[in-house]
Amino acid sequence: MLSIAKIYDAAKVLNKVARKTELIQSKTIIEDKELYLKSENLQVTGSFKLRGAYYKISKLTEEQKKKGIIACSAGNHAQGVALAAQKSGIKATIFIPATAPISKVEATRKYGADIKLIDGVYDDAYKAACEFQEETQGEFIHPFNDEDVIAGQGTIGLEILEQLPDIDAVIVPIGGGGLIAGISYAIKQLKPSCKVYGVQAQGADSMYESYKNEQVLELPTVHTFADGTAVKRPGDLTFELCKEYVDDIVTVTDDEIASAILSLMEKQKIVAEGAGALSVAAAMFGKVPYSEKTVCIVSGGNIDVNILSRVINRGLLTTGRLSHLTIELLDKPGQLRDVSTTIAQYGANIIRVRHNQGGGHTDINACFLQVSMETKNSQHFEEIKQALVDKGYRLISEQQ
Amino acid sequence: MLSIAKIYDAAKVLNKVARKTELIQSKTIIEDKELYLKSENLQVTGSFKLRGAYYKISKLTEEQKKKGIIACSAGNHAQGVALAAQKSGIKATIFIPATAPISKVEATRKYGADIKLIDGVYDDAYKAACEFQEETQGEFIHPFNDEDVIAGQGTIGLEILEQLPDIDAVIVPIGGGGLIAGISYAIKQLKPSCKVYGVQAQGADSMYESYKNEQVLELPTVHTFADGTAVKRPGDLTFELCKEYVDDIVTVTDDEIASAILSLMEKQKIVAEGAGALSVAAAMFGKVPYSEKTVCIVSGGNIDVNILSRVINRGLLTTGRLSHLTIELLDKPGQLRDVSTTIAQYGANIIRVRHNQGGGHTDINACFLQVSMETKNSQHFEEIKQALVDKGYRLISEQQ
Repeated sequence: MLSIAKIYDAAKVLNKVARKTELIQSKTIIEDKELYLKSENLQVTGSFKLRGAYYKISKLTEEQKKKGIIACSAGNHAQGVALAAQKSGIKATIFIPATAPISKVEATRKYGADIKLIDGVYDDAYKAACEFQEETQGEFIHPFNDEDVIAGQGTIGLEILEQLPDIDAVIVPIGGGGLIAGISYAIKQLKPSCKVYGVQAQGADSMYESYKNEQVLELPTVHTFADGTAVKRPGDLTFELCKEYVDDIVTVTDDEIASAILSLMEKQKIVAEGAGALSVAAAMFGKVPYSEKTVCIVSGGNIDVNILSRVINRGLLTTGRLSHLTIELLDKPGQLRDVSTTIAQYGANIIRVRHNQGGGHTDINACFLQVSMETKNSQHFEEIKQALVDKGYRLISEQQ
Repeated sequence: MLSIAKIYDAAKVLNKVARKTELIQSKTIIEDKELYLKSENLQVTGSFKLRGAYYKISKLTEEQKKKGIIACSAGNHAQGVALAAQKSGIKATIFIPATAPISKVEATRKYGADIKLIDGVYDDAYKAACEFQEETQGEFIHPFNDEDVIAGQGTIGLEILEQLPDIDAVIVPIGGGGLIAGISYAIKQLKPSCKVYGVQAQGADSMYESYKNEQVLELPTVHTFADGTAVKRPGDLTFELCKEYVDDIVTVTDDEIASAILSLMEKQKIVAEGAGALSVAAAMFGKVPYSEKTVCIVSGGNIDVNILSRVINRGLLTTGRLSHLTIELLDKPGQLRDVSTTIAQYGANIIRVRHNQGGGHTDINACFLQVSMETKNSQHFEEIKQALVDKGYRLISEQQ
């Protein structure tokens, strides 16, 4: 049975293993309003998952420990379990679909786990893990639907109440629901007046749907770049706890998540993964009622830099700091010089130029100049466009 | 006179204004070795500059405070001074060259300072600031060559000694030298056995040159993307303190700084600016002797996302996670399909394709296919290239 005593016990067990991550006060994420960030992205292994995994292992019998533990994950759970096993001195075998980013596989391997790369997707890896479990009788560590795992994640609730006793609300990302189950239980036991809100990505909203329909539902597919929360079906246990202790669950779009990641980088200098930024996205875009002292759980920071690079580029485009423009030139000398002079005069920085002959629908002498440039903001880009139009150029297309 | 009592006094004054930033232990930045990061990038305003500026203001007389303060900066000092003035309830006028990134100007304005945007470069803004100072008799806050400012930055030294009493070495970024002057003074007073190393960018190594030549030298030009340290001439005061208390000064290249920024993002989930990552670059690339318990000062995180995006892209290219390839195709049907099938079979993700007719030196039927793709690592890219060569394609150029 989950109990507050169990969560306190988990806190004691985790004392020397997990970091008591900082609660960072932010006055800039939401203009003129205070927000607190529980920085589990700065946790060892880059996410909160170590907490539940380590506490779960600590509760195994010596005999169970001897047989080793098994997990199936391509992400944070894999790293959490691997490090927890290493710190506990026991063997971990982790099944990972071969399509997983090599960076995550290597990170897990570094924590000393035995890695089984399985061809196919998550379900194939899960099947292989189950077969291996039957064979070895090792303990399978569930990523969320387990009382000890939930108690481990619940220690975050204790820490927040200690760090900000007059907290009004907490916003928690949801994948399978282990994190919010633990946190909401701890908070509602100790400070029932504090609101607990859950957030899911719109494309992977299984707990949201289950919560609204008051029964566990399974989604046919999930699609979000917050891959850490792409869970088709919430846990039974986590669902029951959400139903009882969570005040509301909301969803955010991938674009909102991307904006939140960019804000966290620019304004708070921390890196969050998609799942980790769900809570901040919900606060930024007013998805939950504003409370004076709101804590957002930034649950993890393990984002692939490829993805991060795309998030930044999208952010630059939407805020007008990167601009693309296609200009029709007449095919005569001096046009390129003329355009680049104009752009330079306005202080924009050209980063790519492409020069192509025109298509069938244009003047036979025409050609196209595609220019990518760093601009200050949308207005700056408008000024440059106007200057080019004033000089007689025809702008074919623009993507800001 | 600088004294340890003054630095303790600064710590007391800063107690409610500056954050006691966390000392983050990292086991991944340098493989199998421990490193500690003093996270001043997570400081309020995104850098350590608030410390010196606020302490300096606290030492002004009431009459001086009434006249207001003046600063000239396009970066962290501007934000530090602006917030320090706001918290002290006095007026700040900050001169910024008009070429400064709009994000930094806006951040400074948000802290309530009066902003004077001056056409031209830093020297022009500085000249305007001096004229304004003569006119108003306000107090000019020097970014580094000032005892009170140095004492404020020195409080970082006290915090480190408290956070890690058995510290062996500290590595400190240097621009004008205020940060290292304060930290080295504090550390050598309290724990003389602890080594203090300074780091500069190779393209802006005025303190390095001065230190090695035992006299203050001025560089004709500075060039580095660690813009927070682009100082042509160190302070006289900071130079004297470096000469006495710093064990060695080394330099790092822009590429090394970029690698350090990427490592901090990927492995520690924090964002550092170029200047802020100097210390980590020195540790990563073995520029200073390795000590068991080394603290790197990550002095700031105010990097423009445009620059960050370039740093990431460069990092992706150098680690083989983004690859560009130009392939010669014969101008006949099915070639594009064939190439893209091969690349897909190897699990790479194509993100851009360009298809151009050949130049004068190629077969008249030939055309070029330029492909950009996300790859797993350099070896993965090599395998794809080999597969294309095996199918009879000629690779024209590659940039990995």
